[in-house]
Amino acid sequence: MLVTERRSTWFRILFKYRGTAFARMRGRLAYSTLLAVAVTFVDLKFGYFHPDLTVIPFTLVGLSLSIFLGFRNNTSYDRFWEGRKLWGQLVNTSRTLTRQLLTLIAAPGGDAGTADTDAISEFRREMVYRLIAFVHCFRMHLRDQDKYEELRELLSATELESLKPELNKPNAIVQAMGFRLRDAWQRGWIHPMHVPILEQSLTSLTDIQGGCERIKSTPIPFSYTSLIHQIVALYCIALPFGIVKTVGLFTPVVVCIVAYAFYGLDAIGDEVENPFGLDPNDLPLSSLSRMIEVNLRQRLGETELPPLLKPKGGLLS
Amino acid sequence: MLVTERRSTWFRILFKYRGTAFARMRGRLAYSTLLAVAVTFVDLKFGYFHPDLTVIPFTLVGLSLSIFLGFRNNTSYDRFWEGRKLWGQLVNTSRTLTRQLLTLIAAPGGDAGTADTDAISEFRREMVYRLIAFVHCFRMHLRDQDKYEELRELLSATELESLKPELNKPNAIVQAMGFRLRDAWQRGWIHPMHVPILEQSLTSLTDIQGGCERIKSTPIPFSYTSLIHQIVALYCIALPFGIVKTVGLFTPVVVCIVAYAFYGLDAIGDEVENPFGLDPNDLPLSSLSRMIEVNLRQRLGETELPPLLKPKGGLLS
Amino acid sequence: MLVTERRSTWFRILFKYRGTAFARMRGRLAYSTLLAVAVTFVDLKFGYFHPDLTVIPFTLVGLSLSIFLGFRNNTSYDRFWEGRKLWGQLVNTSRTLTRQLLTLIAAPGGDAGTADTDAISEFRREMVYRLIAFVHCFRMHLRDQDKYEELRELLSATELESLKPELNKPNAIVQAMGFRLRDAWQRGWIHPMHVPILEQSLTSLTDIQGGCERIKSTPIPFSYTSLIHQIVALYCIALPFGIVKTVGLFTPVVVCIVAYAFYGLDAIGDEVENPFGLDPNDLPLSSLSRMIEVNLRQRLGETELPPLLKPKGGLLS
Amino acid sequence: MLVTERRSTWFRILFKYRGTAFARMRGRLAYSTLLAVAVTFVDLKFGYFHPDLTVIPFTLVGLSLSIFLGFRNNTSYDRFWEGRKLWGQLVNTSRTLTRQLLTLIAAPGGDAGTADTDAISEFRREMVYRLIAFVHCFRMHLRDQDKYEELRELLSATELESLKPELNKPNAIVQAMGFRLRDAWQRGWIHPMHVPILEQSLTSLTDIQGGCERIKSTPIPFSYTSLIHQIVALYCIALPFGIVKTVGLFTPVVVCIVAYAFYGLDAIGDEVENPFGLDPNDLPLSSLSRMIEVNLRQRLGETELPPLLKPKGGLLS
Amino acid sequence: MLVTERRSTWFRILFKYRGTAFARMRGRLAYSTLLAVAVTFVDLKFGYFHPDLTVIPFTLVGLSLSIFLGFRNNTSYDRFWEGRKLWGQLVNTSRTLTRQLLTLIAAPGGDAGTADTDAISEFRREMVYRLIAFVHCFRMHLRDQDKYEELRELLSATELESLKPELNKPNAIVQAMGFRLRDAWQRGWIHPMHVPILEQSLTSLTDIQGGCERIKSTPIPFSYTSLIHQIVALYCIALPFGIVKTVGLFTPVVVCIVAYAFYGLDAIGDEVENPFGLDPNDLPLSSLSRMIEVNLRQRLGETELPPLLKPKGGLLS
Repeated sequence: MLVTERRSTWFRILFKYRGTAFARMRGRLAYSTLLAVAVTFVDLKFGYFHPDLTVIPFTLVGLSLSIFLGFRNNTSYDRFWEGRKLWGQLVNTSRTLTRQLLTLIAAPGGDAGTADTDAISEFRREMVYRLIAFVHCFRMHLRDQDKYEELRELLSATELESLKPELNKPNAIVQAMGFRLRDAWQRGWIHPMHVPILEQSLTSLTDIQGGCERIKSTPIPFSYTSLIHQIVALYCIALPFGIVKTVGLFTPVVVCIVAYAFYGLDAIGDEVENPFGLDPNDLPLSSLSRMIEVNLRQRLGETELPPLLKPKGGLLS
Repeated sequence: MLVTERRSTWFRILFKYRGTAFARMRGRLAYSTLLAVAVTFVDLKFGYFHPDLTVIPFTLVGLSLSIFLGFRNNTSYDRFWEGRKLWGQLVNTSRTLTRQLLTLIAAPGGDAGTADTDAISEFRREMVYRLIAFVHCFRMHLRDQDKYEELRELLSATELESLKPELNKPNAIVQAMGFRLRDAWQRGWIHPMHVPILEQSLTSLTDIQGGCERIKSTPIPFSYTSLIHQIVALYCIALPFGIVKTVGLFTPVVVCIVAYAFYGLDAIGDEVENPFGLDPNDLPLSSLSRMIEVNLRQRLGETELPPLLKPKGGLLS
Repeated sequence: MLVTERRSTWFRILFKYRGTAFARMRGRLAYSTLLAVAVTFVDLKFGYFHPDLTVIPFTLVGLSLSIFLGFRNNTSYDRFWEGRKLWGQLVNTSRTLTRQLLTLIAAPGGDAGTADTDAISEFRREMVYRLIAFVHCFRMHLRDQDKYEELRELLSATELESLKPELNKPNAIVQAMGFRLRDAWQRGWIHPMHVPILEQSLTSLTDIQGGCERIKSTPIPFSYTSLIHQIVALYCIALPFGIVKTVGLFTPVVVCIVAYAFYGLDAIGDEVENPFGLDPNDLPLSSLSRMIEVNLRQRLGETELPPLLKPKGGLLS
Repeated sequence: MLVTERRSTWFRILFKYRGTAFARMRGRLAYSTLLAVAVTFVDLKFGYFHPDLTVIPFTLVGLSLSIFLGFRNNTSYDRFWEGRKLWGQLVNTSRTLTRQLLTLIAAPGGDAGTADTDAISEFRREMVYRLIAFVHCFRMHLRDQDKYEELRELLSATELESLKPELNKPNAIVQAMGFRLRDAWQRGWIHPMHVPILEQSLTSLTDIQGGCERIKSTPIPFSYTSLIHQIVALYCIALPFGIVKTVGLFTPVVVCIVAYAFYGLDAIGDEVENPFGLDPNDLPLSSLSRMIEVNLRQRLGETELPPLLKPKGGLLS
Repeated sequence: MLVTERRSTWFRILFKYRGTAFARMRGRLAYSTLLAVAVTFVDLKFGYFHPDLTVIPFTLVGLSLSIFLGFRNNTSYDRFWEGRKLWGQLVNTSRTLTRQLLTLIAAPGGDAGTADTDAISEFRREMVYRLIAFVHCFRMHLRDQDKYEELRELLSATELESLKPELNKPNAIVQAMGFRLRDAWQRGWIHPMHVPILEQSLTSLTDIQGGCERIKSTPIPFSYTSLIHQIVALYCIALPFGIVKTVGLFTPVVVCIVAYAFYGLDAIGDEVENPFGLDPNDLPLSSLSRMIEVNLRQRLGETELPPLLKPKGGLLS
């Protein structure tokens, strides 16, 4: 999903809640602030804590923690953006493959007046529909959804049935495209020299699919995630003990501000790391695949098109 | 648009206003400074604020804020530069495709003396004009402009009319190019082995288009933008309370300087993030597409060329 | 191997042990903390240490150390991710090559009714099995394992035997594929214009193999690794002397926290640097190659497939 | 130009002047130091400045300034290195295209004994010369130089004349190559299947040209440059006021050292940003294009070659 | 060369000398420490230095220095790794080209029973040997070595002789391969459609060569190197004056630790910047080219192979 309210003014953004990292970290933030209140209370009431507790370790550790959080965010964002690039490539490849299907599949002597004319244009339509089916199937594959009934109007019943036992359904659809293209080539509808172009577009589909599967199946190494979580938690829990002698009554405020920043940066990394889910800041795959469908159908000359998806409550799904 | 006054001396740049981030942040800056004045006044007059308020949280948070602002600027600039690279590729591909149209489309037995000679050279001209139309149409598509009348002298009236219902006009133009190339190939004007080269250039156009659409439609995740806005605002609003006991009368000056730096870095990120708009630091798409038009027309041997765009008031549109 | 327990809650991750960097650094951490205890004891008992020992050098060095640790982690992670990308490409290329083998290898006049039909489909099966053998062989090659008996059901006995003297077994398998494809082409089973496509897929296999061998054989320059180890060790050993006068009794706690962060970041870099080993955070090559095998066999229409690997004790091998 | 004295010892480099950033910033540095002297004098003599002026804002701002300067230098260096990569690609493509011209252009039945032999070898020579002309013309195009007479011995008089009205001369030369290759193909000197290879090399020339033009015409957004100049200047001008109470007599020394670092980093960014100029640290385009010329002529079997360029006064032009 | 002792334990690495940056910086380090001793002595004996000298400028400058050192190391490492990638590509391309030579060069009607059989297999062997010669020649070219006698058993005497006047010997070898491939094509040993594949592999060799030449001939701009050397030196020389009042007797220890870190980071950048030399941390080109030779000869079916290089004294040359 994608938050779309970004056009609001700078001032309003400060008070947004939906789509921010706040939801994800409010628990931790509340506990840390409560701890700070308790520490302050104990110290002011009983003078319990030792003056040797200083801000020194926080300055020393703060730096590497910041750089490490920066690294984490960089990496998570790269994953997000690579996922977006791959879906952008899917938009491109589906447009390109459609153009190639419409222009390179042709009866040897030209389109008009041959017996094959109808068969060819039916073949083109079928191929473009299979491509649309690939896009939707791939989206469901990435989101671990199982609503393959949606493909019913795009694929023949036999083909849909034969997909059921497949472990990797999108890959099976690409394979089916390959077989159909070979048929067309053997019937003389595709010039042998143009087979490599079409084959390359299929390869591009496979590469896009593999790239997204890679991002989905391989998170950032667990040792990074756990170390960063631990240092952030240690830092925010120890902070009130370290500053209560200097900052006194204001300890909870300071702890709350600092913890807001650190928990926030940590939480965003978690959220953006897997861009194919259904979180508010994930990629709007439904919207993208609908857009591809509309684009391709329009290329086939269809005029009754499904509508593009609109954001619901500021979120594009 | 692109600021072109950069050749001025280092000293003069310090006092430039147009094209800097100042316009975008002057409101916030003024409010923060006024708040600092108020805080200073109250403290000096009534000794109101508690000495426990220290600079400590600002040192602790400042670091991750800086690294996070650095990340934000890095990312925004990468988007800007990727957009520029894509338009650079558009320059390259349009030159390359023009060269290919002029050299690879030819009557089988050589150009001279065939009946097709005139038809072929008219065909080449029409194709190059359609390519120029693609460039202009794509620019308007990216800027959400609707001045498609500009294309009247580049496309035939029927073709222009058929574009109207299209949701994605540039894509439809590329499709039209594909159909025309198939015609030429079927007439024998293009060697079947050379079709892949031309097809590849069309694919490159589609990839450039998709790349720009991706940058335009997918901003940096909202959770980043909102968190960074919040931390910057929190920092600049809390700063006077934290330093008024140490810096005294100079609080507003210090707050103004620090806020200038942080608001400035934040505002630049916002401005550069979407490089296809009409902000002073956005890409000069009008100028680039005019340059492409002039380059391609000159390749057709035309001598009456529209002028290249000149900067107006230091800005290239 | 890959740690898979990442779906646990944020709170639980704080107390995980397996797959974290803790195992790797517990020795160093214990020694540093013990040293801090000793230093604190000597100072409090005998007032031995000089007050001139301050935190200054740690602030000065801490910054470049942090940036350097950041650089180290960046680089190690890039190596990890490049390794993952190459294995992702292997997934893609093996799917693509399988599709090409199934669609581009065909009797000239179409599949049915020719004498070659059976020979061709046997040839396709043999080629796909050889590809699966390549994947497994390559995995063992990267992990310096010698269990080539595993390939017995994928390759003929003669071929397996001829692999034995080879120094680079995966490369020899690709060469064998090349020879077999030439045979098919010379028999007319592959159109001469389609040989380049298949050849390109073989080249892709060679590139993937070379890329992984490069990562495996060339670690980060030793001068980086040694300098960073030295500075981290120097820092953590000198720290108690520098802070004992200020922090007093809390010296061991502070040293333990700081050393945890620095040793941890250093240790993660070491662990992730070579992603093809059998450490908990290394790539799950066994699981990936099994997945490839299942995918390809399903493309051949086989239904008795080996099961996908499941994580054992939270680790995917 | 390129500074070549880098082989001198570490100690000597400390006192180099030529090719360093010092020349570019000496003015600013002198003014800042003088201001510091004045501030120190006024303070020591009249005790004029207020003790509230502290080093705090410099610590707070210093961090983001440093990170921002780091970003700026990163970006500038990336532009420099991308420019170098493009010229490296030009070296590669010119060698490759020469090899292709010499091996792929041939009379159908083999070279010897045909009537075309002489015409073909003259054609090859002419094409290689045109390629050398492209390289020189492109260098002058990038440097806004107008010494096109240099091309007189590489191009025929008519061709040189026809270049004059061209707005983009290198592009016109590539177009001319395209036309000549078509001629050769139509005469049967190039196999139709080999045209794509040669065409691809021309495309590579166009891409290199476009890439360099992009770097030249699109500087880093002005809002970055101006903000960084402003913060650096503000920082260095305000510094003496902030530290004069603490550092006293040594204020000018401290200001000079700090300003040296910040002005230096800022100035290097400016210098390296456009790598195609004639600054000491710009790319040695003259030397590179001469090297290409010598390489290609040697491939033609020529033995009277112009000498490679030597550094003059430690600078390679 | 490559340091191979990295498998030693973490503890032992702390005391390694060979292959670390220590050798390169021991002089500077000794001088800085001696200066610190002198400053401390003078101050303690005569109370000479002014208390205004503080640690402030070092904190202010230290940050940008660290970030700048980080940038430098990043860039140097990128050069190292790009060099390694190019040699990795050389490994890949040489394997691929060998496979292509063995499979795509064939008598039209199949290998057996033709008069050309022997000539063809001799031709293949000669081509693979020329490729091995390219690899060795390229290694010597990069290292400015002149031991071309090593190529005597790989190239014919005439060919070796004709290389002598060449300014760029590896390029001349690639050209010779191109001519020989044309011969084979004209004799009908290579299908015209397969020439592009082989030509592409030659292009890849040229690209690899050009890439390495680029890294070798274009160091990081001198203004970066000199500025960083100057700031590091200034910092380490001024440090004792700044801290002697605070740290007293421990000044030399602190200076030594800080200078160790900064000189070390600076020195590593210098060492890794040019990865093709003979420093301990440079790339093991001899070992890589020997490995390529063994791989390719084994593909030719040879069994008497030269041994792979073993590390000598922990260094792989």
